[in-house]
Order: sequence, then structure tokens, then C-alpha cells
Amino acid sequence: MEEFVTSDLIIGIISGGQLGKMLIQEASKWDMTTYVLDPDKDCPAAQIATRHIEGSNLDFDAVYRFGKEVDLLTFEIENVHMGALKKLKSEGVRIAPDPDVLELIQDKGKQKTFYTRNDIPTAPFHLYESKEQILHALDAGHITVPFVQKLRTGGYDGRGVAVITHTKDLEKLLDGPSVIEEKVAIEKEISLIVARNKAGETATYPLVEMEFDPQENLVDTLFCPASVTEQQGTKAREAAEKIVSLLNMEGLLAVELFIDSTGDVLVNEVAPRTHNSGHHTIESVMTSQFEQHLRAVLNLPLGSTELKRPAVMVNILGEPGFEGPVRYTGLSEALAMAGVKIHLYGKKITRPARKMGHATILATTLDEARKKAKRVQQLIKVTSWKKK
Amino acid sequence: MEEFVTSDLIIGIISGGQLGKMLIQEASKWDMTTYVLDPDKDCPAAQIATRHIEGSNLDFDAVYRFGKEVDLLTFEIENVHMGALKKLKSEGVRIAPDPDVLELIQDKGKQKTFYTRNDIPTAPFHLYESKEQILHALDAGHITVPFVQKLRTGGYDGRGVAVITHTKDLEKLLDGPSVIEEKVAIEKEISLIVARNKAGETATYPLVEMEFDPQENLVDTLFCPASVTEQQGTKAREAAEKIVSLLNMEGLLAVELFIDSTGDVLVNEVAPRTHNSGHHTIESVMTSQFEQHLRAVLNLPLGSTELKRPAVMVNILGEPGFEGPVRYTGLSEALAMAGVKIHLYGKKITRPARKMGHATILATTLDEARKKAKRVQQLIKVTSWKKK
Repeated sequence: MEEFVTSDLIIGIISGGQLGKMLIQEASKWDMTTYVLDPDKDCPAAQIATRHIEGSNLDFDAVYRFGKEVDLLTFEIENVHMGALKKLKSEGVRIAPDPDVLELIQDKGKQKTFYTRNDIPTAPFHLYESKEQILHALDAGHITVPFVQKLRTGGYDGRGVAVITHTKDLEKLLDGPSVIEEKVAIEKEISLIVARNKAGETATYPLVEMEFDPQENLVDTLFCPASVTEQQGTKAREAAEKIVSLLNMEGLLAVELFIDSTGDVLVNEVAPRTHNSGHHTIESVMTSQFEQHLRAVLNLPLGSTELKRPAVMVNILGEPGFEGPVRYTGLSEALAMAGVKIHLYGKKITRPARKMGHATILATTLDEARKKAKRVQQLIKVTSWKKK
Repeated sequence: MEEFVTSDLIIGIISGGQLGKMLIQEASKWDMTTYVLDPDKDCPAAQIATRHIEGSNLDFDAVYRFGKEVDLLTFEIENVHMGALKKLKSEGVRIAPDPDVLELIQDKGKQKTFYTRNDIPTAPFHLYESKEQILHALDAGHITVPFVQKLRTGGYDGRGVAVITHTKDLEKLLDGPSVIEEKVAIEKEISLIVARNKAGETATYPLVEMEFDPQENLVDTLFCPASVTEQQGTKAREAAEKIVSLLNMEGLLAVELFIDSTGDVLVNEVAPRTHNSGHHTIESVMTSQFEQHLRAVLNLPLGSTELKRPAVMVNILGEPGFEGPVRYTGLSEALAMAGVKIHLYGKKITRPARKMGHATILATTLDEARKKAKRVQQLIKVTSWKKK
């Protein structure tokens, strides 16, 4: 693999958001040449990529032409034109993770079926083709309120999901092929990243626990290690490692799980890429998820996932009520606290709940880190200003 | 200081070597715009800087014009055209560290005089204008062999230094204004980085111990924490903090010290910038020296200098006998060892003993890290190849 760790290797990243940017920050340490495909010339990754090529992840021609220019193609988003990836693969372009894995994951219906077929614990579900079919199934008593609707394709960051708690919520139903899941009484949401390289080596990160902002349906606070029982930890790791192995992953798989009110561990969904729940690893773990992604897709030996310090991560989100050129306040005050590490993604425009950055807080104890994280959330505000 | 931590701030870095590159890696986390001035379009920092401007650090016009384009000017090298910096400062350009500090440090004669005038322990010395004057002083018995000659200006990385152990070494004497220092019986070489911001806040890093390659006069292995007595540690810290305070530093000061055979602590020399002996901080300390430099020059609160793990750093140097397009071997094997973090600077051409990268090795104990570091040094080799 020596040949890859030099500036002669061009790694191509589809989409140039914060995940792409942080991947390039790591790639730069190994002197790799990085190309990024994104329609927005001001996207976060373009600022430090060797080369930014304008084009959409959903455009056949753009993805195909981009793939032809790089030595290794990877992505930071699930939504990639599958036809283009398949054509590139058939022509011998190296793509990691494999398009087949991406195709499975792009469709939440196929994903759920894959779990049940392989005895991986997940919430019971039904598949329907349309809103009409769902209403029909309700009438026939095949499903009952409460339930969760997830569009099979295209959803992310809480979009494409409808939570139907009461009959009156039915007006929120989305139209399109959907997974209808029993509404699990969720005790905890946890997450787990597993890396695997072509040689079959795997490396599993410590479990993280997520607290959601119920209003925005976005992760609010994340902490590591998670407070779960040994048995729950083992069950989560075993499920995640089984999925990774069944998929023959080359790269990272982020596995989101629930612990329900009976203490059971259920797989919610997976993402074949670096993940918001792994940002804390940049400072808290021996090998960051971004370095690990590079190791995995290049078939290099995987790095240690040992935790150096307990960590809490908070997303820095656009405040409600502001949309326009971004303005940050409270950064200095937050930076004055020991162990606070701030990442700003460089998005020029803020919108309510847009992920503009994150802060990782390291401390000797998780309790101390959590207290500091609360303070950081109170301090840092993302609003808007007009340039003079 | 809020206004500075956005992409609206342009930070200008004079010279684009590895120190500039690693500074930009950190600046990118805070979404700063970075300009770099360097004559070489392939310099390490150019790969990820927002903008690379071709020009020499020693050229008045290049430095002056560059300074006019940025909001804050800093440098990663001592050798900067002083006239240009002074003119920029007189015109209100913000420069950190201050040109006056740089001017003092650029001249090793002034630097030594500053130490003795301020009761800072340093090896006894004499100043001479030329090789002829030195030989004359020897004849007159004012100085005696053994001694060390350091050219007052222009030397770095072991250049501009002649070690005269025996009379026959006198043929190695350099011509030019020089510091002649008694040859100290060195027990240990240690180093210490202190940061200070305009508000007067200081932060001191843990002491590091350096082992030199006697052939190349370059740091070979560095480890942190250093094995010194409590008293020696205190004396070193006090000396370093006193210098930083006397200089009203805005930025980092790297202080190199000797411990002599009697156990005494002596200041050797200082550099007003990020330093090779601080590279390990990227992974081993809460706040890396590069983030700390940004905090210090922007007058932000300084970050914690708490050590997360004991660390050893080894430079990755060009092998003797090779000069040409760079080729790395042994990287995969080194990456397979837990806790090995590799940084390649992206220099296209290797030369004997050229600093091409470094590896930091983290472990639970320093002893374990040192053993791994030895193995890393055996594994990674930098030679040359021709492109096919």
C-alpha cells in the first residue's frame, strides 16, 4: 500500500460538506491529493481540497466524470447517483465502500429486510408503497397508531420521517414508498462505528450515547463512553460487527441503535461513512474516525480505537429565527474553558438548526465534561449579520 | 475577538514549510482564511492554504506587499526581511510576534547579551566580528579550545555552527560576526514552549527531552515528559517564563536549554514560533502548539497544556545517499502499530537529512512509546525513485 500514501494518490470525495472537510484535514497529514465534487463552490471541503470540481452527487455525468479523474473514489453522503457508481465500478474504478453496500443502505426498506433476514435485532416493520396504502393498512388494522413512518429513500437529518403519535398526526404522513415501524419506547439512543478494510481486519469504536433535541430531531449532545450495561454493550457491538462482516465493508459503518424500555438493544439504521456521532474521536480517541476511514478504504492496517479521555460533543446549530450570512458569538468565552475544542465548518449562510460546527469537550471525568458542554451550549450562538 | 474566528479574517503566514502547513490545518478548524508567502509553489503549506503567493521571506517588496493583503501577519521562520516588517508595523499592520522580538532573536549576539543582562542562566560567551578576530583572541588566550562558534545571524537546523573540540578543528571556523561559547559538558538537552497573548496570559507546555543525531546535528528523538529533577524543571520553566514576560511575547516562544554535567540548567537559544519539539502536542496535549499559536496571536484565551498521554516524536529524515523525487517505505508497517501517528509534509524532493515528516508515538508509558519509536525509525525510510 506504500504507493498510496503520497501525493501521487488522488482520493475523490463525493460531496463537500463538513465530513469531507474533516476527512481532507486528515488526508493532508499523509500528503494525499484530494478532489471534491460538490455543486457549491463555497462548500466546507472546497476550502482545503487540492481541487474542487463543481457538480452534483445526483448527476450521472458529474459523478461519472469525477470518478474517472481519481485513483480512489469515496463519499461522505449516502445520496449518490447509483447508475454512475455502478458504471464506474464495472470499468474498474476503485470505489470504497462498495456501491452494492451503498445501494442496500440507500433504501431503508431493503436495509430493514436485511436485518430481519440475518437475525439482527430491529424494531418490527411493514413496507408500503404510498400514503394511500398506509391509510388502507390502518383501516384494515394491519398497523396501529402510534408508529413511525420513514420514506425508504432520500431522508437524512430527520427529514423523510414522520412520527405518528396520535390519530391527529396522520395529516403529517408523507407520500411515497415507506417503512412503517412500531413506535419503540426508547430508553436510550446509542451509536457505534466499526471500521473494516479489504483484508478483513475490523476495529470497533467505544459506544456513544446520544441525546436528541425533540424539536429539531437532531442530535443535541453526544457522550462517550455511553452508560449502558456490559450486556447491552456486547449486544450492540456484536450486532454492528455482524453487519459489517455480512456487508464485507471497506470503510466505516456507523450503526445507530435504540435501547428500549425493556433494556433490549435494537438496530435503527446504519450509514456507510464517517458520522456525526464520531466527531469527538478527533481529539478523544487514538485514531480519529476520519483517519480510520482513510486507513480502511486504502486497505491499510486499522488504528487503535482506545479512548484517551471521556468526551462530550455538542453540535453548533443555527439559531431559530436567523437565516443569512453567519455570525458567531460566545466563541472566546467557550475557548477559555479547558478542554473545549471548536470546529467551524465554514458554511457562509446559517439557517435554523443547520449544522454549522461542533464542539468537543474533553475532561478527566464524563460528568465534568457534561457540565462544561452545557455551558458551551449556552455560550455559543449562531445568528446572522450583514457585512458592513 | 469574535470577529476573528470566521473566514473573514485573513491570516498571513510568512514561509510555507511544515510549520506553516500544520498551522493551516488548525486554522482550518476555525474556518480562517490563510495566505502563505513562499517562493516555492510546491511548498508544504501551499497545498492547503486558501491562497499561496509566490515570493521570498527575504525580499522587501514581497514581504511588504504580502503584509498589506492580510489582517494579521505571522511567520513560521525567523529569517524575515526586518525592514519590511518594521515598515508594515509603522503603517499599523498587526504583526505577531512583534518585529522587535524577532529582531532580537535573529541576532544570537543580542540574544546572549539579553540573557546575561537579565540574569537568565546561559553559557559564558564572547562576541567577535570575524574569523580573524577569533583566531587573534585564541592567540591572546582570551578564549581556549574547546569552544562552540555560532554565526550571529542566518543559521538554522545546525547550519552556521562550528564545534571546535581540538585545535585541528580550527579549519572548520566560519567567517563572520560570531558568538563564541564555552563548550558546556551537556548532560541533556531539553525544550519548553511558552505561549503568551496580548492580555498577558501565559501557558507553559510540559518539558520535552531531545536526543540528537551527532552526525547530522538534528533532533533525532524527542520525548515528553522529560526526565529531569523537580528543581531542574522549575528552573527551566522559570527561565522560560521570565524571557516570555520580558519580551512581552504575543505568540509562542520555544526555549531550548541544556542541563550540564553539574546538573545546572542553561538557556541555549529561543525561537519565537512553533517548534519541532512541539509537534507531539498535536496528539498528546489538550491544545496543540499550532492551535495555541493561533490563540496567542489572536489574543484569545490560551488553551490547556495538559498532557493526555506520554509521547515520543521522531523526525522522518531523508536517507543519506538519496536526492530526488521522494519515495517512502515502511509506512504501512509503522501504521500497524497502535498509537503511531504519521505526518508527511509533502516535500516533493528528498535530500540527506531533510525533514520530510515526523511520527508521534503515544502509549500508556513513556518506556513503551520509546520502544515503539525505535521500531518506527527502523521501519520508515525516505529514499528516492523516478516516476515511471
